Amino acid sequence: MHKLAFIGFGVVGQGLAEILRDKKDVLKKEEGFEAEIVAISDLMKGSIYHPNGLDIETALKVLKETGNLENYPVTPGLVKGWDSLKTIRETNADTIIEVSFTDVKTGQPAINHCKAAFESSKNVVMTNKGPVALAYKELSELAKEKGVSWGFEGTVMSGTPALRMPIATLAGNDIKEIRGILNGTTNYILTKMEDEGVSYQKALKEAQLLGYAEADPTSDVEGYDARYKIVILANYVMNAPLKVDEVSCKGITEISLKDIEEAKAEGKRWKLLAKARKENGKVVATIAPEKVEITDPLAVISGATNAIAYDCDLMGTVTLSGAGAGKIETGFSLLIDLININREGTLVKM
Amino acid sequence: MHKLAFIGFGVVGQGLAEILRDKKDVLKKEEGFEAEIVAISDLMKGSIYHPNGLDIETALKVLKETGNLENYPVTPGLVKGWDSLKTIRETNADTIIEVSFTDVKTGQPAINHCKAAFESSKNVVMTNKGPVALAYKELSELAKEKGVSWGFEGTVMSGTPALRMPIATLAGNDIKEIRGILNGTTNYILTKMEDEGVSYQKALKEAQLLGYAEADPTSDVEGYDARYKIVILANYVMNAPLKVDEVSCKGITEISLKDIEEAKAEGKRWKLLAKARKENGKVVATIAPEKVEITDPLAVISGATNAIAYDCDLMGTVTLSGAGAGKIETGFSLLIDLININREGTLVKM
Repeated sequence: MHKLAFIGFGVVGQGLAEILRDKKDVLKKEEGFEAEIVAISDLMKGSIYHPNGLDIETALKVLKETGNLENYPVTPGLVKGWDSLKTIRETNADTIIEVSFTDVKTGQPAINHCKAAFESSKNVVMTNKGPVALAYKELSELAKEKGVSWGFEGTVMSGTPALRMPIATLAGNDIKEIRGILNGTTNYILTKMEDEGVSYQKALKEAQLLGYAEADPTSDVEGYDARYKIVILANYVMNAPLKVDEVSCKGITEISLKDIEEAKAEGKRWKLLAKARKENGKVVATIAPEKVEITDPLAVISGATNAIAYDCDLMGTVTLSGAGAGKIETGFSLLIDLININREGTLVKM
Repeated sequence: MHKLAFIGFGVVGQGLAEILRDKKDVLKKEEGFEAEIVAISDLMKGSIYHPNGLDIETALKVLKETGNLENYPVTPGLVKGWDSLKTIRETNADTIIEVSFTDVKTGQPAINHCKAAFESSKNVVMTNKGPVALAYKELSELAKEKGVSWGFEGTVMSGTPALRMPIATLAGNDIKEIRGILNGTTNYILTKMEDEGVSYQKALKEAQLLGYAEADPTSDVEGYDARYKIVILANYVMNAPLKVDEVSCKGITEISLKDIEEAKAEGKRWKLLAKARKENGKVVATIAPEKVEITDPLAVISGATNAIAYDCDLMGTVTLSGAGAGKIETGFSLLIDLININREGTLVKM
């Protein structure tokens, strides 16, 4: 029985909890995977812990109806009010589900959560990008030293296997270049401008109405979100110690309808491309809008879909596309990390 | 040290041998993978075996210069002339590389090679489709009983991970439908007809000149090749015991330039689609040309490229595209199977 503690319990955490509830039997049958949630600690939604496990349905129901997990029915052994670090260090969880509300600029508190978990010999699976983009070397070495696993599939393209696919299935190739559409919001905006001839501002507003873009869209439209993701890909997939500030970054805010129309006339399309390329033994990465040929596998990726093309010495170009966000899709990214820990962690390269 | 015996030594086998020669150091460093070829047995090119290993470079050179492996320099312990079954049963190989010239209709002699290998407690990695399409249940059960691994990534889309990707990275999803462009020859022909307005016959001739199509193109253009591949996908990825004769099959020989133009006018494209769909607890599969919408992820797959879309309950549609053939690409498919055996076979679902 795989014991889990959730640090943070927002949309993504609840997504995983729902999957674990709904897929309990099939995961046991097909994967021999059995998990139980022993703790949930959320800064705003309260904190509960029971060493013998919590009932998922009850926890979700209590949260929905009362807004606070601490209204969970009291049973002998139930503990309330432990903060995230105490939950990480002192519960009997095997694995920490790190989905806390984290400042993307500093990566905190997620980085400290990872450290505390590894130091307590607990695995971490997570979707926060900060710890991988900002502290990959330190954290991966610590996890390795402690003999635990660190899964973060969901940090790039949610559960679309942008990280695990190349490691599990393209090993033996030298991946010379990675090109990706790694941000759904900007791709939605560019697609909308091209398909409907609307302005950047109008397309952005539409993206905000649909929940693709946040009220402050800076992180997406300036390319910062994609920059974190290409740094994660460089570190994990290309094995290159790239830092965020080494990546030049230009967003889509200056793309006009005129630019879009001009590209169209040339048989091209504007895409915000994240690129990382091996050059003389190191990796050079950029985020910038680019006019791609209509025949490029990335040109046809429309709307909020994400895609990534790996240029390999043996296999040529292998392209993967799928969802880049979503409650269930990102919840699944945590599940596949857990499944792979259950398969004895052989896929987690550390 | 992973000891290998090649049964058959045509283009694909030589492709793997070249990769093993060229990537020796990097595979050892990055994967802890060390392989040595102890035997090669080919019906036309001769047979050599040395329990302490053969020199790859020398074997390739002797074959190239003399056309017969048995001109390999004699050293103490070198054995010549063993046939495939004796090589499988009596050499000290851990794993059989099954790349023999096989009749696709009967799957022989590859099926017998697999049986002999499993009964001798040897792993098999291979690219022949017959054993998986025609005898999946029997062979996978035998391998399981004997505790050995059976890898066949290269049977669908060469080394593009159409089989391993879903197992390694999408586990936990119910894959409800698979749609693929699984035959490069027919996709090349359809692309050529559409892009250049040439007839089916002319496009076929061009494909034959380029080596994409064989002198007798029946297996490709009638859809039989794609039919084998969808059966392999159904059995392995969807866990459904589908048989070849249960798949309705229509090729592209009746597609005219007029059909192509009509589709274009409708904003569509003809593609030879392989489909497998779960319906009431069983899998229904078809091979047929279909007019797909230009916005379909499969519509943009042009030339000899292959692609496959997995429709998942949690992740939505995940699409993978890449090479479907080629000496090095198919050679790589054998390598990734070997690498995964080396990673303790946890990915080989049997």
